[in-house]
Amino acid sequence: MNLKENERIDDLEINNLKIIQNKEWFCFGIDAILLSDFAKEIHSNSKILDLGTGNGILAILLSEKVKNSRITGVEIQEEVFNMAKRSVKLNNLEDRIELINRNVKDLFYEREFDAVVTNPPYKEKNTGLINENTYKLISRHEIEGKLEDFIKSASKALKDRGSMYMVNRPERIIDIFEYCRKYKLEPKILKFVYSKVNSKPTLILIKAVKNANRYLKIIEPLYIYEDNGSYTDEILKIYNKEIK
Amino acid sequence: MNLKENERIDDLEINNLKIIQNKEWFCFGIDAILLSDFAKEIHSNSKILDLGTGNGILAILLSEKVKNSRITGVEIQEEVFNMAKRSVKLNNLEDRIELINRNVKDLFYEREFDAVVTNPPYKEKNTGLINENTYKLISRHEIEGKLEDFIKSASKALKDRGSMYMVNRPERIIDIFEYCRKYKLEPKILKFVYSKVNSKPTLILIKAVKNANRYLKIIEPLYIYEDNGSYTDEILKIYNKEIK
Repeated sequence: MNLKENERIDDLEINNLKIIQNKEWFCFGIDAILLSDFAKEIHSNSKILDLGTGNGILAILLSEKVKNSRITGVEIQEEVFNMAKRSVKLNNLEDRIELINRNVKDLFYEREFDAVVTNPPYKEKNTGLINENTYKLISRHEIEGKLEDFIKSASKALKDRGSMYMVNRPERIIDIFEYCRKYKLEPKILKFVYSKVNSKPTLILIKAVKNANRYLKIIEPLYIYEDNGSYTDEILKIYNKEIK
Repeated sequence: MNLKENERIDDLEINNLKIIQNKEWFCFGIDAILLSDFAKEIHSNSKILDLGTGNGILAILLSEKVKNSRITGVEIQEEVFNMAKRSVKLNNLEDRIELINRNVKDLFYEREFDAVVTNPPYKEKNTGLINENTYKLISRHEIEGKLEDFIKSASKALKDRGSMYMVNRPERIIDIFEYCRKYKLEPKILKFVYSKVNSKPTLILIKAVKNANRYLKIIEPLYIYEDNGSYTDEILKIYNKEIK
């Protein structure tokens, strides 16, 4: 496989899966790993939609974690989309993962998917410091697709009782709940991710179910680091690392 | 002071404050203590409204924690209201705490208060097992006042930029956010209370500000117990106990 400038191949350390990343762009982080772990309960043979697939990390991980799943990844940025396609090919996953170069707002799916996974841009447009290149900017900020677009498209694409799994920042929680209810996706499970036991939460993992009853369970939190700075056992387990 | 049947006087262990409780009714718990600690940032000299004051625990604690505050407590249950009145008298706080025997839905206050504190009934009507006596039932379940009534009355009673401090159960968080936004109380600070580090959250503390901008901060959580079952230092500090 020929790599382009600034690209590298990273080993995902799960069943020999690999991913191509461009070190100048947005590289996958712990959020994608945690979301793939949170969503691994998706039934085998499911049809899964990944909204804002980026370099394809989530689709590639889920192809391993959800047996016989068929995954459709949607990515608006053409160069990022092309890189994801090459990663899918590199892993011989063309029969499991289909990629579409399109804006999440412009999808035509209706009641087709059993599950949606999404790691949308976290930040509202014009919030925070914007000094990144265009690729990072679109991946991180709501330039092309707003949170509401992701949730609206997710709801439309899901079958009745289908589930959406999302990772996001804690400060977006009220907006997420508001849009979920607006589009009939009832939040059912919420998990907070804390850097350490006594820190503020850094991420949230949300499962919402289309047309479900109102009842939210907030489950046990996840801590990334021990006080001494080493990873917690739960994180090591998610990363398939040996627990000492 | 003459006590009625089943009543007892408990020492709050803060500046010699005491409270009369009826052991057959709803007695105050850690939620009232934590809410009074969460709300202690209210400026001195503030006019504070306590919605659903019950035995008056929150009003009595805040009279100590917020200097020169004047507190109005609203309680629908006449016998509970009368008991709270006697507790106020017992502490010689009649000039600081005024109690009103009324349904939270029927308040006439408009833009009068600097802050609202509330520990409303947690459970929706007809949820969970209802085998309690009437006093416990009304205190715990939404028999007379629903969550929406509490938030609506809080918003109406608050001045512009006034703050509401609420304690509730984690599973009500979506409804709280929804009603808060409906009545222009923007949630600004959210704190989770966990029994232990690896347990589900048991309580939430929310501060919402009338007519404020949208931005929620989820702050460091509070853990009640250490793994060995003893109280954490943070809890001991809130309870004014010596930390060993």
